[in-house]
Amino acid sequence: MTTGRASILEQFKAPLVLRNFSVSAEPEPGAVLVRTEMAGICGTDVHLWKGELPITLPVILGHETVGHIEALGEGVDKDWSGNPLKKGDRVTWSPGLTCGTCYYCAEKKIPTRCVNRRAYGISQPCQAAPHFLGGYAELHYLKPHTSIFKLPDDLPTEAVIGAGCALNTALHGVERTGILPGDIVVVQGAGPVGIAALAVAKHAGAGEVIVIGAPKHRLEMARRFGADHIIDIEEVKTSGERIAAVRQLTRGYGADVVLECVGAPPVVVEGMEMCRDGGKYLILGHYCDAGTVAWNPHVVTRKQLQVIGSWSSEPRHMKIALEFLRATQKQFPFAEMVSHRFSLEQANEALAASASGKSTKSAIVPALSRL
Amino acid sequence: MTTGRASILEQFKAPLVLRNFSVSAEPEPGAVLVRTEMAGICGTDVHLWKGELPITLPVILGHETVGHIEALGEGVDKDWSGNPLKKGDRVTWSPGLTCGTCYYCAEKKIPTRCVNRRAYGISQPCQAAPHFLGGYAELHYLKPHTSIFKLPDDLPTEAVIGAGCALNTALHGVERTGILPGDIVVVQGAGPVGIAALAVAKHAGAGEVIVIGAPKHRLEMARRFGADHIIDIEEVKTSGERIAAVRQLTRGYGADVVLECVGAPPVVVEGMEMCRDGGKYLILGHYCDAGTVAWNPHVVTRKQLQVIGSWSSEPRHMKIALEFLRATQKQFPFAEMVSHRFSLEQANEALAASASGKSTKSAIVPALSRL
Amino acid sequence: MTTGRASILEQFKAPLVLRNFSVSAEPEPGAVLVRTEMAGICGTDVHLWKGELPITLPVILGHETVGHIEALGEGVDKDWSGNPLKKGDRVTWSPGLTCGTCYYCAEKKIPTRCVNRRAYGISQPCQAAPHFLGGYAELHYLKPHTSIFKLPDDLPTEAVIGAGCALNTALHGVERTGILPGDIVVVQGAGPVGIAALAVAKHAGAGEVIVIGAPKHRLEMARRFGADHIIDIEEVKTSGERIAAVRQLTRGYGADVVLECVGAPPVVVEGMEMCRDGGKYLILGHYCDAGTVAWNPHVVTRKQLQVIGSWSSEPRHMKIALEFLRATQKQFPFAEMVSHRFSLEQANEALAASASGKSTKSAIVPALSRL
Amino acid sequence: MTTGRASILEQFKAPLVLRNFSVSAEPEPGAVLVRTEMAGICGTDVHLWKGELPITLPVILGHETVGHIEALGEGVDKDWSGNPLKKGDRVTWSPGLTCGTCYYCAEKKIPTRCVNRRAYGISQPCQAAPHFLGGYAELHYLKPHTSIFKLPDDLPTEAVIGAGCALNTALHGVERTGILPGDIVVVQGAGPVGIAALAVAKHAGAGEVIVIGAPKHRLEMARRFGADHIIDIEEVKTSGERIAAVRQLTRGYGADVVLECVGAPPVVVEGMEMCRDGGKYLILGHYCDAGTVAWNPHVVTRKQLQVIGSWSSEPRHMKIALEFLRATQKQFPFAEMVSHRFSLEQANEALAASASGKSTKSAIVPALSRL
Repeated sequence: MTTGRASILEQFKAPLVLRNFSVSAEPEPGAVLVRTEMAGICGTDVHLWKGELPITLPVILGHETVGHIEALGEGVDKDWSGNPLKKGDRVTWSPGLTCGTCYYCAEKKIPTRCVNRRAYGISQPCQAAPHFLGGYAELHYLKPHTSIFKLPDDLPTEAVIGAGCALNTALHGVERTGILPGDIVVVQGAGPVGIAALAVAKHAGAGEVIVIGAPKHRLEMARRFGADHIIDIEEVKTSGERIAAVRQLTRGYGADVVLECVGAPPVVVEGMEMCRDGGKYLILGHYCDAGTVAWNPHVVTRKQLQVIGSWSSEPRHMKIALEFLRATQKQFPFAEMVSHRFSLEQANEALAASASGKSTKSAIVPALSRL
Repeated sequence: MTTGRASILEQFKAPLVLRNFSVSAEPEPGAVLVRTEMAGICGTDVHLWKGELPITLPVILGHETVGHIEALGEGVDKDWSGNPLKKGDRVTWSPGLTCGTCYYCAEKKIPTRCVNRRAYGISQPCQAAPHFLGGYAELHYLKPHTSIFKLPDDLPTEAVIGAGCALNTALHGVERTGILPGDIVVVQGAGPVGIAALAVAKHAGAGEVIVIGAPKHRLEMARRFGADHIIDIEEVKTSGERIAAVRQLTRGYGADVVLECVGAPPVVVEGMEMCRDGGKYLILGHYCDAGTVAWNPHVVTRKQLQVIGSWSSEPRHMKIALEFLRATQKQFPFAEMVSHRFSLEQANEALAASASGKSTKSAIVPALSRL
Repeated sequence: MTTGRASILEQFKAPLVLRNFSVSAEPEPGAVLVRTEMAGICGTDVHLWKGELPITLPVILGHETVGHIEALGEGVDKDWSGNPLKKGDRVTWSPGLTCGTCYYCAEKKIPTRCVNRRAYGISQPCQAAPHFLGGYAELHYLKPHTSIFKLPDDLPTEAVIGAGCALNTALHGVERTGILPGDIVVVQGAGPVGIAALAVAKHAGAGEVIVIGAPKHRLEMARRFGADHIIDIEEVKTSGERIAAVRQLTRGYGADVVLECVGAPPVVVEGMEMCRDGGKYLILGHYCDAGTVAWNPHVVTRKQLQVIGSWSSEPRHMKIALEFLRATQKQFPFAEMVSHRFSLEQANEALAASASGKSTKSAIVPALSRL
Repeated sequence: MTTGRASILEQFKAPLVLRNFSVSAEPEPGAVLVRTEMAGICGTDVHLWKGELPITLPVILGHETVGHIEALGEGVDKDWSGNPLKKGDRVTWSPGLTCGTCYYCAEKKIPTRCVNRRAYGISQPCQAAPHFLGGYAELHYLKPHTSIFKLPDDLPTEAVIGAGCALNTALHGVERTGILPGDIVVVQGAGPVGIAALAVAKHAGAGEVIVIGAPKHRLEMARRFGADHIIDIEEVKTSGERIAAVRQLTRGYGADVVLECVGAPPVVVEGMEMCRDGGKYLILGHYCDAGTVAWNPHVVTRKQLQVIGSWSSEPRHMKIALEFLRATQKQFPFAEMVSHRFSLEQANEALAASASGKSTKSAIVPALSRL
């Protein structure tokens, strides 16, 4: 048996609790045991902590994780992409486990909506063995059929954590919009998802990208990621002014594609007016239920829009994300987004830093806790 | 000069006024003069009469019209599909005239949103020559570049008017959803657009089609057009019950495609819940602005939906519509939808019959007024 | 143990041999034992018999099969669509078993090209238990993860066998072409795949369908399935004449979509010339390698074509096929295609009848052999 | 009247002849007179000179041209994108003029196949006024409805000519393939179209791009444009070796998308084998008819390919191209492709330099001839 510490969400809105768990040092066939190097704090973790999503407790939060292989179960010798795996390899993985055989997996081919989907750090409770099913811990157990990815040597762990699940989410969402080279794109929001959407849109050949958001340090980051125009919502304060600003940047027509990366319902109403007629509007930021807004469906008919939703991501997006991160490190400095590091004991502070928006991206580094 | 009568909308919400106009018996090059045989009353005409759309008065209403060619301007010898045209031919035409060169026509290829679009019976005022620019009149002037279609002999005028612009609208909208053979489809609404959407969905290979609407005579018509299941909103009265009914008919998942053909905002909120995850939702009934509704954008993300708008139609849809009507007359009895005929003097009664929903479809037959 | 007879391909081009096999009466968990009611002879079986595809012998041919459940392994209580399964139920199944985890299954989502794909009646040798892995036998063993479909009571076995794998193949192929309502379609070939493609194209809303083929009895069948125009290759003998005939039926432009269902390379060259510019050409009949043809790639550029291949089908196509067959029995008389029935002892005659093209569709009915 | 010199193709395979023409200094309404700054020599010009495409003589070659506005006809005050136009502005234009109303323009929306299409420098004979209808001349007359584009100040003329029509062609073709971020792409050919296709693929988010071609100086250029892998056909000499090399770079599967930019039929046969199953193959290099090749259509079925043709480009591609050139000058040095400059008197030498492949790109600079 191997023993390690984990920071556990036992009660919503209450501090995470640090506990010890043990796990077999020899994983079952198909499984892998990993020693956590770094775990990202995702905005969703804050929502989970508040009880805003229907999950079962106790749970170890953390679905953006990099670690080193401690032990391989029988039959695991390759990662998802076919690369050989061995003890010591630095890896990450898709948090979601899907069944492959349900209506959504087999018939409709949208595994993100698999009826049996379970995600590490979210919907994998930790009270029973193998316990280590989330990132805020010294160890992580990867069940059979987990989509594991060996990290290339020239891709720093910080880049993977800095991008986090936001990049996979953005790749999935932008893929569904079918951005064409030369398209004018608006990104609503400059948080992790917004920055990732900006990078993906640029990478997909967008002609000009307009980023709308705040505060200043995030807009700075957007500029470093190549935003062609910035609209600071602390300066351009009304919805009408922002719509007018986008129209002015687009010869009066609006953008070809607008990517919503905020999660506030009024932003959706505003964003649809920023689309040109025949344009596309991606609702990407509404992973959580943030309630209703007064909305006029006539706008969708009149402007002949396509409004597109995208939920989470598939393993193939993780594969694309890692290769993208590796190849574009100079253009898109995701590694620099990791602005704050915390030990495992500081997990509550890490969550608070993310909740406040002070950090661009917080991460837990379990090794720090031994210092 | 040729003289004829026209029923004119001079003031919103006031009775249409019958007046005489004259027009040159020799149309300019590229133009055509038509003697109206039958003009359909579209639901939009009622909205126009009420002043709910921003148009300039006075106008002769009527954008669904069949007539016989009275005179051909120089250079017009073929219809839009390449068929020869001559005096006496029975024809219909696309109401919309587009420029072919604007941003939407040339660059984005969505002529329905042409910035210079003008539609007979809607946005072509009648005070100046050639006056006859709407269907509620004895004559109709077709300007150069109008998309004219010669009607095949085995296609009755009633079928063209019974289908009306609703069929073109439905063809355009359903085309944008990309219905696949076997898809389960819900049609919200059993008015002219709903019936047309039902027919188009069946024709496109939909596996089962569920129609939701009222009153009884419309649901009867839906059944005749091949609806596999009917949900009568006078019996299944709450939104929750209707959503549950659709779920029950779809093994709990919801429909692949839901087609909104009502025009009431709450119907949109209800309809999105009727989609399966990864499904498509077409907002087709909101040609007019019917105000806002409390709506939760989270549903689009969580269910990974595509929400699609579609505005009006292109000439190519008229071509498809006419061939469709001709080939499927037995399966889809559009001709029988023309339930009430009126003379030109009775134009106000015709509008009232449409407004009340008593008629399935009303039509003006100018020749009746001579009796 | 249960014992049954099977007709076995032990040597290419040699007569099939009738042998007895035994199988456990209690299938392993996840598996099902079926008593064969009817097995279709597919054109591919003739190619397999000739050794034209790379398979391992011995094998029991037959990948189009209907039977009744004899015994259910533990854990099998529903079919692929979620319908309950019990002993005695009449079922069919997808012949292909795929892995769900390889590059093609998981990353590219084209399970038809699964690197671990094995098909009953083709690539499942029969020398080892459970032996019964093809249709030409009294029993059929369905391994765990087989996609099984319970047949609705109002769908005759003959319709399923008459349609055969040709219908699934056609559904997959035509889906890839994205036929739009009103499209003019040419079907090259009037064999089982051609007839199925005709039915699917009509069902998908094709405006007019032109079928090109021979002999007379097949063209008769095409007419019964709704072909709008027939080109008899025994009368219109040259490629140039046939291209001209299609052009004449399409105002000189060619068809929107051409579906190749023959399997002879020169037909592909001819068919591309039958497409309008910007049209689509589906190569569906070339499941086997029939060699090369002199072809000019300039035609694809100049005509701006899309040329599309489609291999086999997925389980979801079987689901769609069965519902399609049930709902359209009157329009598309697939059941009548089963023109010849043979006992298991007559399996060689059944193959010969298919090879000669005398039969529209041959079937083996094991119960006949007991008479 | 204004007078200028033009280099004229009067007889196939014979030297171009220099003649003087006059044109009204006041263009008709809608037209524009331009003084040529630079005209690119396209590979197609060589084919035209040899008589390999069906054109009417005499013609002034040159369909890639930049010039300065000398005079504007009445009503021309904006370029295609809506930017204001005035005398002296530096402009380029789409060579093709389309009708906007034919079957291909209006119904099928593929203006590249407009039945009335006429292209400057190709299908616009010069014997009648206004004569100046090709690039190899001091003046160029732009008829009404020409799609004119004002060049931004920060975009050098050399970049526009260096990219030439190859870039528009590549944008159109690659758009039709729908490259997704992360896709592995093979470019067959390293001439102007191949280099442009490489740039467009990288810009569209391709993961890795493999370029196959020769000679060395072109492969050098490919590397400068960002090719991730190079296969030199002078070193890897057989088709089988090149296919194996691509397989090795793609984990054995082949590329997601292969772009043919050579124009030699055997290259197409080779390229299809370089696609992964389910991949896409673009035939872009076959603008001219280069004859047939022995090809096996089975490969399209078995590999479930999409083979896509693309003819020329639309004005919207020119718009995208210019913005792309402006924004990516540092990444893609198109301006450096203009390796050889010639005076108008040297037009025959310019053609010869292009024909021999010695120049990366040749250009005629009429002003040089005055020196």
